[in-house]
Formats: sequence, C-alpha cells, structure tokens
Amino acid sequence: MDVLSYTKLTLEDFIGKYRCLLKQPSISAKNVGIKECASLLRDLMEDSGIYAEVFQSRGNPVVYGEVESKESDKILLVYSHYDVQPPDPLSEWIYPPFEAEVVDGKIVARGASDSKGNIMAFLKAVEYYVKSEKSAPVNVKFLFEGEEEIGSPNLPDFVEAHRDLLKADAAVCWDGGLHPSNRPSICLGVKGILYVELRCKTAKVDVHSSYAPVVINPAWRIVWALNSIKSQDGRIRVEGWYDDIRPLASEDAKLISEIPPEDEDIVKELGIKELLGGVRGVDALRKLICEPTANIAGLKSGYIEEGSKTVLPCEAVVKLDFRLVVDQKPDKLFDLLRRHLDDEGFRDIEIVKLGSLLPSKTPPSAPIAQASSRAAEASYNAKPVVYPNAAGSGPDYVFTNILHLDSVWTGCAPPFSKAHAPNEFNTVDYLIKGILYVANILREFKKR
Amino acid sequence: MDVLSYTKLTLEDFIGKYRCLLKQPSISAKNVGIKECASLLRDLMEDSGIYAEVFQSRGNPVVYGEVESKESDKILLVYSHYDVQPPDPLSEWIYPPFEAEVVDGKIVARGASDSKGNIMAFLKAVEYYVKSEKSAPVNVKFLFEGEEEIGSPNLPDFVEAHRDLLKADAAVCWDGGLHPSNRPSICLGVKGILYVELRCKTAKVDVHSSYAPVVINPAWRIVWALNSIKSQDGRIRVEGWYDDIRPLASEDAKLISEIPPEDEDIVKELGIKELLGGVRGVDALRKLICEPTANIAGLKSGYIEEGSKTVLPCEAVVKLDFRLVVDQKPDKLFDLLRRHLDDEGFRDIEIVKLGSLLPSKTPPSAPIAQASSRAAEASYNAKPVVYPNAAGSGPDYVFTNILHLDSVWTGCAPPFSKAHAPNEFNTVDYLIKGILYVANILREFKKR
Repeated sequence: MDVLSYTKLTLEDFIGKYRCLLKQPSISAKNVGIKECASLLRDLMEDSGIYAEVFQSRGNPVVYGEVESKESDKILLVYSHYDVQPPDPLSEWIYPPFEAEVVDGKIVARGASDSKGNIMAFLKAVEYYVKSEKSAPVNVKFLFEGEEEIGSPNLPDFVEAHRDLLKADAAVCWDGGLHPSNRPSICLGVKGILYVELRCKTAKVDVHSSYAPVVINPAWRIVWALNSIKSQDGRIRVEGWYDDIRPLASEDAKLISEIPPEDEDIVKELGIKELLGGVRGVDALRKLICEPTANIAGLKSGYIEEGSKTVLPCEAVVKLDFRLVVDQKPDKLFDLLRRHLDDEGFRDIEIVKLGSLLPSKTPPSAPIAQASSRAAEASYNAKPVVYPNAAGSGPDYVFTNILHLDSVWTGCAPPFSKAHAPNEFNTVDYLIKGILYVANILREFKKR
Repeated sequence: MDVLSYTKLTLEDFIGKYRCLLKQPSISAKNVGIKECASLLRDLMEDSGIYAEVFQSRGNPVVYGEVESKESDKILLVYSHYDVQPPDPLSEWIYPPFEAEVVDGKIVARGASDSKGNIMAFLKAVEYYVKSEKSAPVNVKFLFEGEEEIGSPNLPDFVEAHRDLLKADAAVCWDGGLHPSNRPSICLGVKGILYVELRCKTAKVDVHSSYAPVVINPAWRIVWALNSIKSQDGRIRVEGWYDDIRPLASEDAKLISEIPPEDEDIVKELGIKELLGGVRGVDALRKLICEPTANIAGLKSGYIEEGSKTVLPCEAVVKLDFRLVVDQKPDKLFDLLRRHLDDEGFRDIEIVKLGSLLPSKTPPSAPIAQASSRAAEASYNAKPVVYPNAAGSGPDYVFTNILHLDSVWTGCAPPFSKAHAPNEFNTVDYLIKGILYVANILREFKKR
C-alpha cells in the first residue's frame, strides 16, 4: 500500500489526533499548556509507533523520539517545535484559536500551520512506514522543542549536552512551508541575529526642558550613537563588521537567480512605492538573502503620548536587531559594537544583549539538500524554490555548527497560512501532500 | 492702617476665600471645572471691590477686571492664570489636591502656588487700597486666563482683539515665585518656544525585520534627520537658525553675573556628575539664560515593550522643543527647519507644529522693572534676583510684542513649592509677604 492510500484509509484518525494536538494550547511566551502539550505529543508519537520520551531541559520540555530502520544505517534528525505564538487579538478570529474547527477541509487554529501541522504530517509518514511497510527507509530521530517562538534560548545547551543522542547524518528543520507561488521551498540555511538594546540613562528623573542648555539629553546621545553605527547609504560603520562574511558562492548566486522575484508582493503588501534604493527583481532577492542588516526595531525616550510636554528625558532606549550572514559571529560583533561605541565617545551607552543566533549554511550539493529537492519535486510536481539561506533567522546553527550536520529548512505549511496572526489555518489537502513529501524525503535520503 | 495690619485683621476671610478658589478644580488639560472657576474668580474680585467680567474667548473664559485710581493716570496690567495642572498621580498626595487642607499655616492643594496663591495675594493688596485707602495708587487692569497650563493657545488672539481694553503703561506677569535662595526673583522676559513633531510614516503596517535589506525604516530616517539638525557639540545645524539673535547687552551680562549660581543644585537634584560640557557658575547661567536649544522631548517607534521583537516599524515620531531667544521668530524658524530637511533629503519627514511662543525682553531700565525691584527689596528685605530672561517660556510676548509694553515676570510663590507636582503648597507667611510685595509694586510704579 502506498503512503497516500494508507493516509486516506486512516484519515479520520489522523485529523482527530491533529485536532487533539491543536486543542492543547502551548503558548511558550505565556507559559500556557507547555507541559501538557509535551506529554500529549509523546503519546501521539507512541501511537504512531515511535519511541518517544519527554526531556526536562532547563526551559520547556524537549520531546525526543526515535525510529529504527531495518533498511539503512543512515540517521536523519528531524527538528520542529510544539509551542505556538499567543493568539491575540482574540476578537479577530473567525473560530476560537484552540477549537480547531474543520470546515470544508480547512482547519483554523493557532499552530495549524506553525508547526503542529508539520509535526503531524511527519509523524504520519513515519507511521506509514512503521505500520504498513514494517520499516522506515532510514533511522529517524525526533527533536521537538517548546521554545522556538521565544527564540530557542535553551536549545543550544540541550543539543550540546546530547551530542551522542542526537548523532545523525543530516538534519531536516521541519518548520517551513510552501513558497507564495505554491511551489515547495527549501532553505539551505538561515541568517543569524544579534538583538541588543542600547540604553542611555543620564539622570534620576526627567526634568523641565528649560534645562536643555546645561543638562545632557540621553535621546540625543542615542541618536548620535545610532548615526555612528549606520550611515544613510545603509552601510554599517562598525569597524570589522563585514570582515568575516563569506563571499557569495557561484552556486548560491545561481540559486538566487532561479528564485521568483518577491519585490512586487512586498511593495503591494506594505503600500509603498518601491523597495529601498529602488532595487527590483533578482537584485532585491540578493539583498534580502545576502545582506547583513542593522534594524531599529524600537525606539523610546521621554514623552510619547499625544500632544506636547516640555520634558528633558532621563533615559533613552533603542532596540536593534542585526541580521548576520555566514560566517559572522554574534559574540564577536557584540564586542566590535562595544568597541565602536567606546571609540566614538559613547562610553555612556550601555549595550544589553537580548538574544543571538549564529547564521547557518548547508551547501546545495549536500545529500539532504539533494534528497529534499528531489522529494519536493516528486510530491508537488513542481521544482522547489531553493534559497541559499532564508532572510529570517532560526536555530539552524545548532545542527550545522554544533552537530556539524548538513541541514535543510523546509515543511508543508500552506503559503499565506497566517502563521503568528489571527485565523492561522491549514488544509487537509496540504497535510496529505506534506505526508507524501516526508515519505519521499525519507526514501530519497536512503539513496546515496 | 498699613497693608499688613489690614491683612491680619481680615486674614480669616482671606484664607477662606483662597481655600474656596483652591477647592474649585480648574484643570485646563482635562476641561474640568474651568467655567465654574472663572465665575468664582469674578465673584471673588467683586468681593474685593474690583469691577470684574468673564469674557468668553475662543477657548476657556478670560476673567477681566479693572480698578480705577484717584491718584494716578498710570495703568498697570496684571496677568495671571486660574487654570491648574492635572493632579496626577493622586496616590502621592498627602492630602487630596482639591481639599486645600491648612495645617500649621501650610496649605496643600493643586494651584496653591501656581497660580491661585499669586492671584489671591494680588486681589488682597488691591482690596486693601480700595477698601482701606479708598484708592489704588495706580489704575489696575486684570487679565486672568484659563489656558496657561496648556500653552495659552488663545491668549494672543484675545489680546489682539482687545488692544484698547488692555491699554496700559506696563505689565506684570504675576505667575512667578521666589528664588531658591529665598530672595524675590524678577524675569525681564522669557524664552520663546517652537514645539514640533517630526513624523515619518513609510508603510501601512509594521513588517518582520527580515525585510530590512529592502524596506525603508522610518526610525533610521528620523535618526539621520535629527543628526542633521544638531551636532554633538550642541550646535543647531539649520542654516540661519542663529541669524536673528540679539547679542547679549552689557547690562544683561551684568545681571547674569549677579545671579547666584544654580549648577550645584541642578547637579544634586538630577543625580548627575556635572553639567553638559562641565560648565559651572556664571557660565552655566549664561547658557541657561542665553542659549537657544533643540531638545528631544520624546521619541517613539516600533516595539517599545519589554524584551525583543523583530519588527521593522512603519512609523517613527520625535517631539522636539526649540527654546528661542530674542529676536528669534518661531514661524521663520519653522520654515528654516522645513527647508533644512528638504535640503538634506528628508522630504519624507513631515513637520507638525504643536505650539509656539515668541521670546520677550524688557530692559532693566524700564520703570516697571525698577519699580518691581524696589518693591521686592522693600518687601523681602533682600535684593531681588533679576534675570534678563527666564530659561523657560511663557506668553509674555503678547505684552511686549503685541501691546508693546514693558513687562516683568514675578510673583510670591514659595521656592520649591512643587508646582506641577504632587503636594504643591503655599504658606500663610508667603501669602502675606506676597500681599505686601504687590502693595509695594503698585506704590512704586506710581512714582516715576
């Protein structure tokens, strides 16, 4: 029996379990339902014939699992997450976010696509092999964390501490979805990130702004410091910032040239006239994928309500997120930033690190990249859109840099599935395609 | 009977009426009790033997009054305000802000010093002349507005429209108080102000910061625009900004040299190490009094809560207050600022004017300046601290520039009386001294 037949035969059971997982809230940002969801996921894995175990990490539990193959020595490590974003604002949901209503083959729920749908599709494909074929094509290890939506703060330590357990030949980060063109998509890495706050506190209290001639203003300090960090042409002026960047490989340039342009969609969505600097097409893609950034995510000082108040603030804070590309290292860049501010005369500005992730990169020639690509094309009847790396960030480096594995970031979520927004959804059709995609990945990875 | 004897004889009545005025909230920022307070003030003026009338201006009512003198043709115009600041935060008051509790000769209430105490002292001194002496030394016109705490938006129009009614020989802006050294203080002018918001709106919605390589960030635009407006040495870089500034007159330099230094008090209050650039003593005073400023009063963009969010904001706003010195003109400077932003490539940044006041200046030799100075010394047994102009702003220019009068800014509020803060207070002793000060001003102004 092929995987599609098996799936159709057991579809009711599958959708029931999927809804059961969706109905269990697991909001890491608010610590709601996490433990319950981890236990439930373990039970669902066991139902599918997978050995599963809940690990109490320093943070939220990690659900680990294993399936042995009688056909191959190869081990594939699959990563995903069972935690979800908060559902706010609740009033905008057409169905309650944790009821998982199914209407005409569409399931609306928080986590439906990101990433409980992905998880369930993977489990089902493995179940098919275990129960119907009596062996998975390759050995599979499962690593489902409960902190992805809050930046995976404990994942690196967990992976470091369980190197042997997690030994594998390659990793699939199964948290992605289809390209807006409805073709499958595969990212061969992600950008890293260094998220900091610059804080300048100059006095105990705000004062009347008539003191401005003689009292230091922390908002001006932050403005001048920011100006020293990035110039109007977009260049980051911190010495050494670009030193470790690996030049774009020709194979990656070729991948970029094959990605459908996204500039018109962005322009339309944001209601803007054009992209920064008027870039278009492949040039815009190259910037999105290859350019390290210094982004002001938040800025706050003094009086920010309606109208006017003549106040000289005692504190100013800016949130900056720097996206990093291979081989930039957040710790080194943090030091460079500190030295830059010192050199520019901003010793009065404190830098607080709020988070960091290394960038990651897997070559297009890697077996898991090739296997995923073939599997995607076979499953969706369309060539996958392959990114040298995503414009966003994720904890992929724990696989590439800590475990030294090739790793691909892919998945079966529908395009525009409203992940992180109200009315997140999935469909039975996309889930079935996803199960097929997983089955094909396992089979293709077994081939050399 | 002298004014002190008269005051002591009628003290109970005076304090009763003062409390009555304090118990009537008149919060212009929230439009609470304004009309009621205007009517009450008119009644209190009539009780004191003053002709009084409530004028409905475009904004809050103006309470106008007149007292004729049998002894002089001279007319003194006295200005003050009956509106008060909001009392928040209420929890910090030791007594409710509108109960006006009197404990050991101290009255705690919103408006006790700023400026209902001032108003009541003035009325009482005039009452003394009218009722006990049968004539005021000079004619007095009263102009009490109800919008001072929200920037006097309708006062210029009212004064323009009532030039004949307000005809006078000089003005006293009776809204001040004593110097921290407990000596009386007189300001011969105020700084002007131009309060603007710079706004940069770039898109319909915030987006994920992974778009930073290709989507314009309004917070960076605001940072770069601000950097172009003021350099780190404090210099305002807008062309022509300093062109109209009148050089410091030698008589004003002399006044500044006689003011007690304030730097140590400021340093202590703010818990800072030193003033900006390490200035001290008379240098600090000269900067406070003479320097035009560009102050960031508020700055807001993107995500400003705790923690990290990877967002690229669609809007950034900065509130800027520029203090102006004679003869800078806010309308002209607004145009220069617009031109500056255009020239520097910031046509995408909107400037919204939230308020403006012209700077003002009366020479130390003006009769009202001399009369106030003599009256202050006679009343407080201490030479007044005389400022060429205040470091703060106020609507003094309606007297100096619209009515072309000499004008002084003075009053009888105690030092550190917590104006605008919780537990604002006054004392019976300071009020009595204030009544004496007013009586002396009127008498001294009658002399030439």
